[in-house]
Amino acid sequence: MSSTKAEARPKPHITDTPITWANWHQHVNWLNCVFIIGIPLSGCIAAIWTPLKWQTALWAVIYYFCTGLGITAGYHRLWAHKSYSASRPLELFLALCGGGAVEGSIRWWSRDHRAHHRYTDTNKDPYSVRKGLLYSHFGWMVMKQNPKRIGRTDISDLNENAIVVWQHKNYVHVALGMGVIFPAAVSGLLWNDWVGGLVYAGIMRILFVQQATFCVNSLAHWLGDQPFDDRNSPRDHVLTALVTLGEGYHNFHHEFPSDYRNAIEWWQYDPTKWFIWINKKMGLAYNLKQFRSNEIEKGRVQQLQKKIDQKRTTLDWGTPLEQLPVMEWDDFKEQAQTEGRALVAIAGVVHDVSGFIADHPGGKALIQSGVGKDATAMFNGGVYNHSNAAHNLLSTMRIGVIRGGMEVEIWKRAQAEKEGIPAKDE
Amino acid sequence: MSSTKAEARPKPHITDTPITWANWHQHVNWLNCVFIIGIPLSGCIAAIWTPLKWQTALWAVIYYFCTGLGITAGYHRLWAHKSYSASRPLELFLALCGGGAVEGSIRWWSRDHRAHHRYTDTNKDPYSVRKGLLYSHFGWMVMKQNPKRIGRTDISDLNENAIVVWQHKNYVHVALGMGVIFPAAVSGLLWNDWVGGLVYAGIMRILFVQQATFCVNSLAHWLGDQPFDDRNSPRDHVLTALVTLGEGYHNFHHEFPSDYRNAIEWWQYDPTKWFIWINKKMGLAYNLKQFRSNEIEKGRVQQLQKKIDQKRTTLDWGTPLEQLPVMEWDDFKEQAQTEGRALVAIAGVVHDVSGFIADHPGGKALIQSGVGKDATAMFNGGVYNHSNAAHNLLSTMRIGVIRGGMEVEIWKRAQAEKEGIPAKDE
Ligand code: HEM
Ligand code: HEM
Ligand SMILES: [Fe+2]
Ligand SMILES: [Fe+2]
Ligand SMILES: [Fe+2]
Ligand SMILES: [Fe+2]
Repeated sequence: MSSTKAEARPKPHITDTPITWANWHQHVNWLNCVFIIGIPLSGCIAAIWTPLKWQTALWAVIYYFCTGLGITAGYHRLWAHKSYSASRPLELFLALCGGGAVEGSIRWWSRDHRAHHRYTDTNKDPYSVRKGLLYSHFGWMVMKQNPKRIGRTDISDLNENAIVVWQHKNYVHVALGMGVIFPAAVSGLLWNDWVGGLVYAGIMRILFVQQATFCVNSLAHWLGDQPFDDRNSPRDHVLTALVTLGEGYHNFHHEFPSDYRNAIEWWQYDPTKWFIWINKKMGLAYNLKQFRSNEIEKGRVQQLQKKIDQKRTTLDWGTPLEQLPVMEWDDFKEQAQTEGRALVAIAGVVHDVSGFIADHPGGKALIQSGVGKDATAMFNGGVYNHSNAAHNLLSTMRIGVIRGGMEVEIWKRAQAEKEGIPAKDE
Repeated sequence: MSSTKAEARPKPHITDTPITWANWHQHVNWLNCVFIIGIPLSGCIAAIWTPLKWQTALWAVIYYFCTGLGITAGYHRLWAHKSYSASRPLELFLALCGGGAVEGSIRWWSRDHRAHHRYTDTNKDPYSVRKGLLYSHFGWMVMKQNPKRIGRTDISDLNENAIVVWQHKNYVHVALGMGVIFPAAVSGLLWNDWVGGLVYAGIMRILFVQQATFCVNSLAHWLGDQPFDDRNSPRDHVLTALVTLGEGYHNFHHEFPSDYRNAIEWWQYDPTKWFIWINKKMGLAYNLKQFRSNEIEKGRVQQLQKKIDQKRTTLDWGTPLEQLPVMEWDDFKEQAQTEGRALVAIAGVVHDVSGFIADHPGGKALIQSGVGKDATAMFNGGVYNHSNAAHNLLSTMRIGVIRGGMEVEIWKRAQAEKEGIPAKDE
C-alpha cells in the first residue's frame, strides 16, 4: 500500500515473518527437501521392486563407509577443524567421497560447522539443539534460514584451497556423480546390476549416511555424559559413536575441537580416528594434532569436582561449627550428668548422642562411658578407631562448642593461674 | 633340659614357634582340615561312582541357598552385626541351616567376625588379607591360630541368646545332622536316593557353600572398587556378590556394618537382603537397620574427593601465581613489542604464547591481535568466549604478573596523580 515506506526498509527475510497457512511453503527450503527427503524416500519406494544382489549389498556397505568417512574425516576433522593435514590424493578422495554423501559442499558445511562450534547453543548456532532435537537433526535444512542470523566465521583458509573451491563450484556435478552415477556404474560394470547399484549403493546408502551424520548434531547434543564441560549441550555416548563413525564423543570434541581424535581411549569406537591414523602410516596424512593429555585430564578433574560440589550442597553436613553456641566446660559436665542428657565432647565439640545409644554398634556401655567426658581419644582409637562414616554421623549430632578448648586446656590454665603465670589469651 | 626355666615361663603357643620339618604337623589344625578339606574331597571322589538324579540335583541347589542364607542372613547379618531382629522361628531356621553349612558355630563365627571388623587388616584380624589371599580364604582355618592374637570383642549378647548357646553346645550334632543326615534323608525318603542325597545335597553342597562364603574374606578384600573408603582392604565387586549371595559389596559393608543391606541399589544382586526383606513382610523379621542415605552419600562424596585430589597432584597446573616474577606494565609492553616475544596479558597475568600462535584454533591473526595488550576482554568473550580447556592451556603459559593491576588501573592511577590525588597504595 505505502510503497515509499516499503522501499525505505529492506524487505524482511522470510524467516522474520511468522509461519501462516498462506506462507508456509515459502518457509520451506524445497531444494534441501529434495536432497534429504525426496530422493531418499524415492529410493525406499524403488527398493520394493528392486532385487538385492549380495555383491551390491556388500558394495553399498563399503561405499557407506567411504562416503561417511568423507564427511567425518574430510569435511569435519580435516576442513572444518584443521585437526591434521592431508596430502593432495587424500584430499581428493575425501572431497569426492564427502560429495557423494550429498550433504552440501565442503565450503558450505565447514562454515556452518565453525559457527556451530564458536556459537554453540546460541541463536547464532546454525543447528542449535536448544531449538529442538528434530530441528538440530534436519529441521534447520528443511526450513529456510536467515543467513544473517548464523554466526560469522573465518573461512579464508578454505577459500585458498583449490580442491575445496573446485568442489564448491561444481557441487551439483560432484553430488550427482559420486552420489548416484559412480555407485551405480561400479555395480553395473562389475556385476551387471545397474538398477540395484542406483537404488541400494546410491540412493538408500545416501539416506543412511545422511541420517547417521545428522545424528552428530542431534543425538550427540542430547544423549550421554558430560565428562569435560556441562555448560553447553554436547555429550559423549557410545551409541552415537556407533552410528556416526566415532563422532559420538562429542563433549570431548567440543572441548578439544582441534584434536584429530574424538575418542581418546584405545577401546572406544572411533573408526574415523583409525582411518586418519592409517593414512598417516601410509604417508598420506601428517601433522595430526592432539591436545596434551595433561590438559584433557585437567578438564576431567574440574568437571568431576563441579559435580561433587553440586552433590555436596544437597547433603546435610551438620551445623557448621561457627553457628554452634559456645558452652563452658562446667556447663557441659552439668548438663550431661545432672540433667541426664547424653552429651559427649569430642575434639572440642559437644554432641548429643541420646538418640543413638541404643543403636551404637559398639554397644551401649562403651558409648555411655563417654557421656559427660572428653571422649576424643576414646573415639579416635583409644578404645576404637571409628570409621569415616562414624565421624560423619557424629557431626550431625553437634550441639555446641566448648569455650577455650577441652578439659586438658582448662586444667592447664587453672594450674598456670595457681602458679601466677597469666594464661595466654586472657 | 633346664626344667626350672621351662616352668617359670609358660610354654609358648605352637604358633609362636617357627614351622620346621619336625613340627609342621603340630601347626596344622587337623580337625578343621577334616571339615573343610577331607570331607569335601571325599565327596568329590564318591561322586565319580554316584549317579545324579534330577530331583537330587534340584534339592542340592535349593539346600545350597538355604544353608548359604543360614550363613549370610543368619551368622553374618543377624548375629555378628545385629543389623535386624528375628523372631524365634526364623532364628531357629537360620541356626539350623547355618549349622548345615559346616563353618563352625554361630558363637565362634561371630566372635571372629566382630574381631575382623574391629581390627580389619591388622594382626588382631583373624583372617587379615594382608597375610595373603589364600590365608584369608581358608589358610587361617587350616593352620592353628593363637587365640590370644585375635582381637577381643564383646559377645555378651550372643551368650544371652538361648538358640545361639544351644547351637554352640551341640555343634557337632547340628553340623552332622543338618550337613549330611538331613539332606540325605530328604532325598532318601522322598525319591529313594539316599546315597545321592548324601554325596550331592550333603557333601558336595557343603564344599560349594564353604568355598563360596570363604570368598567374603578373600575375594571381597581383594577384587573391586572402593567407593566409600580406601584406607582398608574391603572392596565392592559384582562377581563376589554373585558368588556370595550378595555379600560382595564389601566396601560398603565394612563402612556401614550395621546396615541390613550390602547392596543399596535395587538393581544390585543381594539375595540375602531380599530374603530378610521378605521375612519382614511375613512378620518374621523386624527392626531392619539402615544407615541414612545422607551419611552414605557423604562417604561416597568424600572418597571421590580424595581420588580427585590425588589425581590433581599428578597434573601440571602452570606456575602458581605467587611464584611468578612481578613485571611493570611498561616492561611488559616493551618486551612484547620491541623484543618480539609474543606476550599477552590476560587477567593481570602475562602469558608467553609464542609457541601457540601457529596452532591457535581461532587463527594466527586473532591471537596476534592480543600481543602486547590487555587481552582479558577479548579472551573472555569480547571476541570469543574461550572454553575451560583454553583457560587451562593458558595457565600453563604464564610467565609473570603485572604490578598493580592492568592497563586500566595504571591509567587511572596516572590520571589521579596528574590531578594531585595520591593513589591509594603508594
Ligand atoms: C564415646 C565413646 C565411644 C566408644 C568407646 C565407642 C566404641 C565403639 C566400638 C568398640 C565400636 C566397634 C564395634 C564393633 O565393630 O564391634 C564402635 C562402633 C561404632 N561406633 Fe562407637 N564408640 C563411642 C562413641 C560413638 C559415638 C558418639 C558414635 C556416634 C557417631 C559412635 C558410632 C559408632 C559407629 C557408627 C560404629 C560402627 C563402626 C564404625 O562405623 O566405625 N560411637 N564404637
Ligand atoms: C588474545 C586474543 C585471542 C583471541 C581474539 C582469540 C580468538 C579465538 C577465536 C575466535 C576462537 C574460535 C575458533 C573457532 O571455533 O572458530 C578461538 C579458539 C581458541 N583459542 Fe583463542 N583467541 C585469543 C587468544 C588465545 C590464547 C592466548 C589462547 C591460549 C590458550 C587461545 C586458545 C584458544 C583455543 C584452545 C581455542 C579453541 C576453542 C576453545 O577451546 O575455546 N586463544 N580463539
Ligand atoms: Fe556439536
Ligand atoms: Fe566439530
Ligand atoms: Fe570383611
Ligand atoms: Fe561383616
